Amino acid sequence: MRATVIHGAGDVRVEDVPDPTLREPTDAVVRVLRSCICGSDLWPYGSMPASEQGRRIGHEFLGVVEDVGAEVSGLTRGDVVVAPFVWADNTCDFCREGLQTSCRHGGNWGAPGVDGGQGEAVRVPQAQGTLVKLPVGEDSALLPGLLSLSDVFPTGHHCAVTAGVNPRKTVTVIGDGAVGLCAVLAAKRLGAEQIILMGRHKQRTDLGREFGATDVVAERGEEGVAKVRELTGGDGTHTVLECVGLRPAVETAYAVVRAGGTISRVGAPQYPDVPADFGTFLRNVTLTGGVAPARAYIEELLPDVLEGTVEPGKVFDRTVDLDGVPDGYRAMAAREALKVLVRA
Amino acid sequence: MRATVIHGAGDVRVEDVPDPTLREPTDAVVRVLRSCICGSDLWPYGSMPASEQGRRIGHEFLGVVEDVGAEVSGLTRGDVVVAPFVWADNTCDFCREGLQTSCRHGGNWGAPGVDGGQGEAVRVPQAQGTLVKLPVGEDSALLPGLLSLSDVFPTGHHCAVTAGVNPRKTVTVIGDGAVGLCAVLAAKRLGAEQIILMGRHKQRTDLGREFGATDVVAERGEEGVAKVRELTGGDGTHTVLECVGLRPAVETAYAVVRAGGTISRVGAPQYPDVPADFGTFLRNVTLTGGVAPARAYIEELLPDVLEGTVEPGKVFDRTVDLDGVPDGYRAMAAREALKVLVRA
Repeated sequence: MRATVIHGAGDVRVEDVPDPTLREPTDAVVRVLRSCICGSDLWPYGSMPASEQGRRIGHEFLGVVEDVGAEVSGLTRGDVVVAPFVWADNTCDFCREGLQTSCRHGGNWGAPGVDGGQGEAVRVPQAQGTLVKLPVGEDSALLPGLLSLSDVFPTGHHCAVTAGVNPRKTVTVIGDGAVGLCAVLAAKRLGAEQIILMGRHKQRTDLGREFGATDVVAERGEEGVAKVRELTGGDGTHTVLECVGLRPAVETAYAVVRAGGTISRVGAPQYPDVPADFGTFLRNVTLTGGVAPARAYIEELLPDVLEGTVEPGKVFDRTVDLDGVPDGYRAMAAREALKVLVRA
Repeated sequence: MRATVIHGAGDVRVEDVPDPTLREPTDAVVRVLRSCICGSDLWPYGSMPASEQGRRIGHEFLGVVEDVGAEVSGLTRGDVVVAPFVWADNTCDFCREGLQTSCRHGGNWGAPGVDGGQGEAVRVPQAQGTLVKLPVGEDSALLPGLLSLSDVFPTGHHCAVTAGVNPRKTVTVIGDGAVGLCAVLAAKRLGAEQIILMGRHKQRTDLGREFGATDVVAERGEEGVAKVRELTGGDGTHTVLECVGLRPAVETAYAVVRAGGTISRVGAPQYPDVPADFGTFLRNVTLTGGVAPARAYIEELLPDVLEGTVEPGKVFDRTVDLDGVPDGYRAMAAREALKVLVRA
């Protein structure tokens, strides 16, 4: 089959790779219908050292079950399923706590010996715990929204949930990428009434407004901080959803959070430290968040996607086929595309 | 009257200062019965630049109301009261949220124009919101425990509460100072069953065991981390109470916290940054805590102190009179004394 392999910064190729087959009785094989490119895929795309062998990439996909191992129950050939962006047994203590990203028997797509999502098919380890059945056909118009359950929507949701967003909390979302926009959507869904989106790409912040942002702050740095404070009577917001992953975004988060408030970060950190100094101590600021256990949230978010009360699939603004994946990376890195859907 | 003035590193003096009088109708004047020296007083004692004028110091005291302003109700001359370590109106939005340390009309003891606690008397701003009446006489044997409600016990409690300690959570306490020991006491009071105390001063860790520590780890750094992991099946603890305030303690906290767990810090940070890198992100570690809103907790903790079910007053292992305060600082800085009580 064909699948995406990253060989280094700026070097993504679609190559022939071995067809996936069942290796463990807990595996399934899924033929991919849709996958996509993640903002976090752009980190290796920007900096990975050159590698002749390369590694498989892509961690968001949905597809059709082709084969299941002997120990997998509840899944049958032909089922349409979505995979969260790490695989997990969904039974260990961490999984039962809703932290499937720390599953004792889980792991990452694209790790050595494990397929990536940006390909024609995937061997899914711990299939029974990992895959979630979707009550739709292969040609459903809902596939983009359902695919977003793999990572981007639950990541925004995780950010809002861990920050403690609720109808009594004001919210700042930092970043107008697909995760930031999904964080807006999640905050709105959780009842927040004031949602300030910090971002400067009008097309994206327009979608942010559609998703529920009440204010948009295009300014950055001190100017942006001043705007958010102005919008909040000088106090900042109870919660800050940091959806970028760069140190300046974290610094902005600390500067716009209200005393006693919570910053949640879901932008994969490209920094070693955060500025948790005496000032943040005096203000009792909490820093939470982390990689989102998407699996924990799929059942909760699925009905709203099926009913169309939320439309996270709108973050996809470009569709490519598998051969178009390298150009999809280029377009996302160049900020021509917000998020690229791959039709396998 | 006489009060303590710090003039620089290592230079604490007891001097004649003006007698406190009512300045605002919201003030009270309190004659101090007991005050004490805080670990955080040792930071200026270690590093304050020399100052001829100096500044008043001390933020923990209890005493007898001598005079009240026209707008203060609920307090009468002769009442025995305890003051939390910041003063606050206890009515603003932050106070109502339990964050009196961010009170819109509050402030710090020893700030310019405000008395410090280590003296014969104190003008108390926002007296009605700040002071809590104690149902004891001036010679009660409970005074040390009641004085601990001013800061050290609520600080340990704040650490445990913000970390989310409960009967289902395992706990590591970093630091065997008075705050660390009170954090042990608070964790035990909140029902924690495994409380690992990291500290290497046997006399202090013995008191920690008395307060509820189930394990003591005397090792530091990697060796200490390995011990905590060994005691927790390799996972670390759900909560980590960081009661030191130095970067190595924070690094240890991140190294011993379980995935999905929470670090709460109440040691006044002597560091600008914390190591919230990609590894902590993947493990969904939360960093919370900050300066403790002692006022928020006094009513809750008071009955247990009065009934003797907890004895936080045991952290005082030396008593001095006002003239002995400079030697009290020296003894605490030299680690001869855990915490020094001042009998005014």
